[in-house]
Amino acid sequence: MAPKEKSAVQFTLKTPKGTKDWADKDMVLRSRIFDTITDVFKRHGGVTIDTPVFELREILAGKYGEDSKLIYDLKDQGGEICSLRYDLTVPFARFLAMNPTIQNIKRYHIAKVYRRDQPAMTKGRMREFYQCDFDIAGQYETMIPDSEILAIAVEGLTALGIDDFVIKLNHRKILDGIFKVCGVPDVDVRKISSAVDKLDKLPWEDVKREMTEEKNLSAEVADKIGEYVKLKGGLDLLNKLKEDTALATNESAVAGLKEMEALYTYIKAFGIEDRISFDLSLARGLDYYTGIIYECVTAASAPPPVSEKPDGNQKKSKSKPKDQDEDVSEYVGVGSIAAGGRYDELVGMFSNSKKNSVMPCVGISFGVERLFSIIKAKEDLSKVRAAETDVYVMAFGGGKDWTGFLPERLSVSKKLWNAGIRAEFFYKSKPKPRQQFDAADKIGAPVAVILGQEEYTTGIVKVKELGLGENSDEGKDVSLDDLTEYVTKLLAEKTKS
Amino acid sequence: MAPKEKSAVQFTLKTPKGTKDWADKDMVLRSRIFDTITDVFKRHGGVTIDTPVFELREILAGKYGEDSKLIYDLKDQGGEICSLRYDLTVPFARFLAMNPTIQNIKRYHIAKVYRRDQPAMTKGRMREFYQCDFDIAGQYETMIPDSEILAIAVEGLTALGIDDFVIKLNHRKILDGIFKVCGVPDVDVRKISSAVDKLDKLPWEDVKREMTEEKNLSAEVADKIGEYVKLKGGLDLLNKLKEDTALATNESAVAGLKEMEALYTYIKAFGIEDRISFDLSLARGLDYYTGIIYECVTAASAPPPVSEKPDGNQKKSKSKPKDQDEDVSEYVGVGSIAAGGRYDELVGMFSNSKKNSVMPCVGISFGVERLFSIIKAKEDLSKVRAAETDVYVMAFGGGKDWTGFLPERLSVSKKLWNAGIRAEFFYKSKPKPRQQFDAADKIGAPVAVILGQEEYTTGIVKVKELGLGENSDEGKDVSLDDLTEYVTKLLAEKTKS
Repeated sequence: MAPKEKSAVQFTLKTPKGTKDWADKDMVLRSRIFDTITDVFKRHGGVTIDTPVFELREILAGKYGEDSKLIYDLKDQGGEICSLRYDLTVPFARFLAMNPTIQNIKRYHIAKVYRRDQPAMTKGRMREFYQCDFDIAGQYETMIPDSEILAIAVEGLTALGIDDFVIKLNHRKILDGIFKVCGVPDVDVRKISSAVDKLDKLPWEDVKREMTEEKNLSAEVADKIGEYVKLKGGLDLLNKLKEDTALATNESAVAGLKEMEALYTYIKAFGIEDRISFDLSLARGLDYYTGIIYECVTAASAPPPVSEKPDGNQKKSKSKPKDQDEDVSEYVGVGSIAAGGRYDELVGMFSNSKKNSVMPCVGISFGVERLFSIIKAKEDLSKVRAAETDVYVMAFGGGKDWTGFLPERLSVSKKLWNAGIRAEFFYKSKPKPRQQFDAADKIGAPVAVILGQEEYTTGIVKVKELGLGENSDEGKDVSLDDLTEYVTKLLAEKTKS
Repeated sequence: MAPKEKSAVQFTLKTPKGTKDWADKDMVLRSRIFDTITDVFKRHGGVTIDTPVFELREILAGKYGEDSKLIYDLKDQGGEICSLRYDLTVPFARFLAMNPTIQNIKRYHIAKVYRRDQPAMTKGRMREFYQCDFDIAGQYETMIPDSEILAIAVEGLTALGIDDFVIKLNHRKILDGIFKVCGVPDVDVRKISSAVDKLDKLPWEDVKREMTEEKNLSAEVADKIGEYVKLKGGLDLLNKLKEDTALATNESAVAGLKEMEALYTYIKAFGIEDRISFDLSLARGLDYYTGIIYECVTAASAPPPVSEKPDGNQKKSKSKPKDQDEDVSEYVGVGSIAAGGRYDELVGMFSNSKKNSVMPCVGISFGVERLFSIIKAKEDLSKVRAAETDVYVMAFGGGKDWTGFLPERLSVSKKLWNAGIRAEFFYKSKPKPRQQFDAADKIGAPVAVILGQEEYTTGIVKVKELGLGENSDEGKDVSLDDLTEYVTKLLAEKTKS
């Protein structure tokens, strides 16, 4: 029990690697991001669900391809074997499989996910981070929900004040068709797809080497793939691919191209086609996508060009011990700031019966920490208030009979709280006026309610606006009976102006 | 890759034991609880922080007494050894110790915590559950923050519509003084305290047996304790204890009684003294409390009386397998709905230097799942809407040239979204009017915007209020150019009325 015994224990005072505390103005900014995105989600008819932070391990198994090694496991303490969720998509699919009466839903979910990855904290690449997901599940006419998801991507990022973004878009059916017509064996499609996915970080030569040396593809097949995956554009590219005689022989590619055609009609109707870059190099790592895949990228997404690196710094950064709780390298970009795609077969993977096994889904996930790092860099932090206190309740008096009016300040504060007004007071029996004004100033409270030694006994307090500078006045005398009404009105006026 | 291979894997489709999914109207109700409590917290000047869901295991070690066995550990996957947080208080203390420049803070934190306890899900006793914590840290005049915390307890529960609650309050210094004057050796104080803590669930005879048989106390000492811990009351009890000559010899008890006296002055000023029951049987399990301790209880907190149990049912319920994912017994109460206390030495346990080792804290934690189960039982769920869609965009037409106006509906929806209006449309190229009205009705959308086959080509749509029953009219013709302004105004009027 005695604290001396316990303080003898030695330990490192830190948060676990890749995690951090959020506080003060950062919390205000992050909450604003949540509010903005939630607002967009609700605008599109979203309802929200919440799933546990850990799932039975077998639920997560076999869903993430090469990235499965990044899953955090809970210790076996007797009972079920569980893992922390890696994303919000697989838990959503598990939820749908468990609730077969839900035949369609637009759900959003804002929550933390966990990945045992190498962190780069200042760029918002963390081991514990938030995702803001919106997914549309249900049997619908092709590409309508997909195009609404893209509209949500555009609206969400625009609402957050991010304008210089592009949505790189591809279609798994087209990509799979390309691999097929180039001569990739069926069993190798996903691993070749993983290699292609690295094209945003590596030059083609490196990706080709991975395909041929690590993944045993012939150089000839790799080169054929190389010809396709360098293509990007818009409707022009779509039309070009439709004329490709090789692709025309592949059922998957033909279906994908047809879907892309419908998609272009709808994104035109939404007026967002200029945001979309049809990019055959985009592959996305995850196994479960079956239709469109896309990533929203901005200038901050890419790593800085090599020329920015001071000499030798790269090497130095690489020699850092790997378990150090800080950036392993400053030379990474924030990555994509939102991404997603269609996954028509994920829910079916959880269904033991054939009956409910088809539940087509398409979704988006906003990466909050990455968005935060971009938004914070642009924000004037001096204008952000952490606390939102409206009124500071003070008492002024003096002389040997002066009690400090502590119970009186408590009673006035309670009156304000009961009226829903945000009020604080100084936690001391006889604080000096200066102390009270400084405290009010520190939290940025716009109004003071002052209990004067004489006036208060007659049921009168002074209400004074703060932070007016040279326009400051003495304040208004207000009867205690009218106080909450007066202050409520004053605060409403101040908010308007 | 082929889904057939994967669906061959067998697994149990469920959430882990003691956890559940939240969806639909439950989510709306729970969000309302969060909003209500957050509003109260902000009213008292609270700022929010967020800490990781897991901590280094050594941070949690030695803080929870007998309950430490309930901590979830992460698997050792190479790297740091971590555990899921058990509460929000220890992470807050760790945060304060890591940020010594913060000398005072009123912080709130609404987040999930984890306990490997025996769940009783319908009563809101879960393994993953939310806590809503407000804590005041800093060196202040005695008992001022403590009384504000009690005011927050009263305001929070009242704002949630819970009126039949009592705050059972005790003081660790008084309790420790009682144990001392009754003859409990120093080393046994915490375990005897744990035994006393069971008095809300067990009769005195059982608690006495635990003290004497399991914890080796003499029957004489136990009986002396029994005389004290049966006492409860208000200021009358406080005055009685002040006259107790035995307690008057104990420094700790005298200090506790003096603090209780100050507390009564302040809770009187707040007008909440009627809510407080000074109850010497309250001990609280956690090791870290050093001053006031309290629990808010309501009728639903206690287990139902024994007479309610159908014959033999108790036995049956006990014979259930322990790892089944459901209530182990219906015969438990929801427990306390909010609780907390003062912990002046917890932050110091994390400080390696003496300098910052004193950071007095007092706090409250609202148990959301327990509050939820009480509130849901009282709520008219038919009035709760899961989605908040305002406008359903429809198209009416017919004949062989009728296209269904899908791109047109997308374009009108986008116009509404861009103006911040919550709009949905039917995901089909040619839906029937009935289908569209039914869909609008299902989500409770109050307004329809209808694209008529003829009118739309002249730039006119119909805006129709829904759910008016027999007062229903044909709707108003509105030009596309004026649409968002018209709808915004209409929705504002409907909200007001």
